[in-house]
Amino acid sequence: MSADIPDVVRRAREGDHRSVARLITMVENAAPQLRDVMAALTPHAGHATIVGLTGAPGVGKSTTTAALVSAYRSDGQRVGVLAVDPSSPFSGGALLGDRVRMQEHTTDDGVYIRSMGSRGHLGGLAWATPQALRVLDGAGCDVVLVETVGVGQAEVEIASLADTTVVLLAPGMGDAIQAAKAGILEVADVYDVNKADRDGADIAVRDIKQMMSLGERQPPDAWRPPVVRTVASRGEGIQDLIEALAAHRKWLQSSGRLDARRRARAADEVEAIAVTALRTRIGDLRGGELLDELAGRVVAGALDPYAAADELVAGVTSSRP
Amino acid sequence: MSADIPDVVRRAREGDHRSVARLITMVENAAPQLRDVMAALTPHAGHATIVGLTGAPGVGKSTTTAALVSAYRSDGQRVGVLAVDPSSPFSGGALLGDRVRMQEHTTDDGVYIRSMGSRGHLGGLAWATPQALRVLDGAGCDVVLVETVGVGQAEVEIASLADTTVVLLAPGMGDAIQAAKAGILEVADVYDVNKADRDGADIAVRDIKQMMSLGERQPPDAWRPPVVRTVASRGEGIQDLIEALAAHRKWLQSSGRLDARRRARAADEVEAIAVTALRTRIGDLRGGELLDELAGRVVAGALDPYAAADELVAGVTSSRP
Repeated sequence: MSADIPDVVRRAREGDHRSVARLITMVENAAPQLRDVMAALTPHAGHATIVGLTGAPGVGKSTTTAALVSAYRSDGQRVGVLAVDPSSPFSGGALLGDRVRMQEHTTDDGVYIRSMGSRGHLGGLAWATPQALRVLDGAGCDVVLVETVGVGQAEVEIASLADTTVVLLAPGMGDAIQAAKAGILEVADVYDVNKADRDGADIAVRDIKQMMSLGERQPPDAWRPPVVRTVASRGEGIQDLIEALAAHRKWLQSSGRLDARRRARAADEVEAIAVTALRTRIGDLRGGELLDELAGRVVAGALDPYAAADELVAGVTSSRP
Repeated sequence: MSADIPDVVRRAREGDHRSVARLITMVENAAPQLRDVMAALTPHAGHATIVGLTGAPGVGKSTTTAALVSAYRSDGQRVGVLAVDPSSPFSGGALLGDRVRMQEHTTDDGVYIRSMGSRGHLGGLAWATPQALRVLDGAGCDVVLVETVGVGQAEVEIASLADTTVVLLAPGMGDAIQAAKAGILEVADVYDVNKADRDGADIAVRDIKQMMSLGERQPPDAWRPPVVRTVASRGEGIQDLIEALAAHRKWLQSSGRLDARRRARAADEVEAIAVTALRTRIGDLRGGELLDELAGRVVAGALDPYAAADELVAGVTSSRP
């Protein structure tokens, strides 16, 4: 690892897969050089369209992602795929092992595929994912597909890092009501009922539409999420999905929402980095002993936790790094 | 809500259920008066034994909790029950609705039962749970049972707020390997194979023991989690469970681990309150506009997120509240 950062970033921008991989590994490991990496990449980022895909296990996220990659590649676009598993501390391995359908793309220079686990680092994937996206964006991807595994709050958060979020459902499993309970309907910009050749596809589509009509009254210029049907394993409906994604992007741009979403995401990212820095500083106070000493006084009943927190905050705001 | 805080705290300490309920509602709502509540309670806290119960849905957590309440009550102890649902923004309702077995205790003055959801407030349940525990502890409970729903990182975190954590399993469902994957075995101080009259109980016990023997080599004075069998619905084995809990508590005290655990928990709690305060201060910087302005510069490619975070940290550490 002797090459200097500007050099690795330059090669990543020229499309060198190994350099992109090294930069994402730095993100995963929260490497100290990340600061320089992000400084070098930021001026070149902001071009890619970020599409999130989420849904319960078994709805066909990987198959749909692979079908989207094929379609975008036919159109000559450079594509990044980031598969994120919030529940796994590991990267690679299991996740990509499943993806037989993705294999045809692994030898294509215009496609960059990567899976990422949390590795348990500070701030987790909500901290790491925006930075990994900036690597793929800065490396020249036109589209980045972010696929998350499972349904839960973490998945919802990661999906919402996208410009456009696709919520996948399949007939007879992970039905719309379950999805509503998990909170994933709130992040949907496009619904995709996959495996639409199976029994129950009509019911799934109807349930989603009913659920939407139950929502709060929307302003007249609001986006109404379309419901697309696909059989991703045969490529059916993928063109409809691509068109729905393009329509949402157009709406984001014309309504000014694209910039607003990106600003909100950047604000979250900057705040997360700042909070991590402040936490580190809390840990450093008085050689790492202040917090433990305060905790001891709380346990002894001599100090309440709010007063103890005041002392920590005072320590952070008076100390100079 | 006119009564002043010292008065509500005093009545809660005298065992008035409505006052305890009001204090926990303040915790749930992150009420501004919490600071005063915790200051008034802290000198009286630290007496209760905190027992966490976790495990997959259907293993019988509520039934086991109810059976433990009965046993502790027969022994004349005051018992608190905190049922926490990390996946739900709501409190009460659904969770307690299920607990037919708990109903016999709802008219007993020596038992305080409460369920709590996250209500989406800052910091979530990892922030709120220690404070709710302090309310029950300060209000004079001898034992507080913290029951969490589901298995996931949040449940593990909440269970680990206890002095002793019981991991429940049942034959033929949520087997030990699943539990291991979810990370719940790492927090177990006591295993309880519930529904032990069903087929597969021996296999479940054997799997747990095998899993433990696969673990890393432990120091000679380490605690080896016992595996208890219960049929909680008939009260069978509950006395064994109570004895296992008592044995673990004795070990915690004699080994000095009780104090260490409590200090570590207090440190987490104090840090969480401090980080929340620092976040609030980040939000307040320059009338709430600094973060948005920095985010705009990041989106425009004029500033990288680390440099933006530096500006936030500098703002926080130079501003006086």
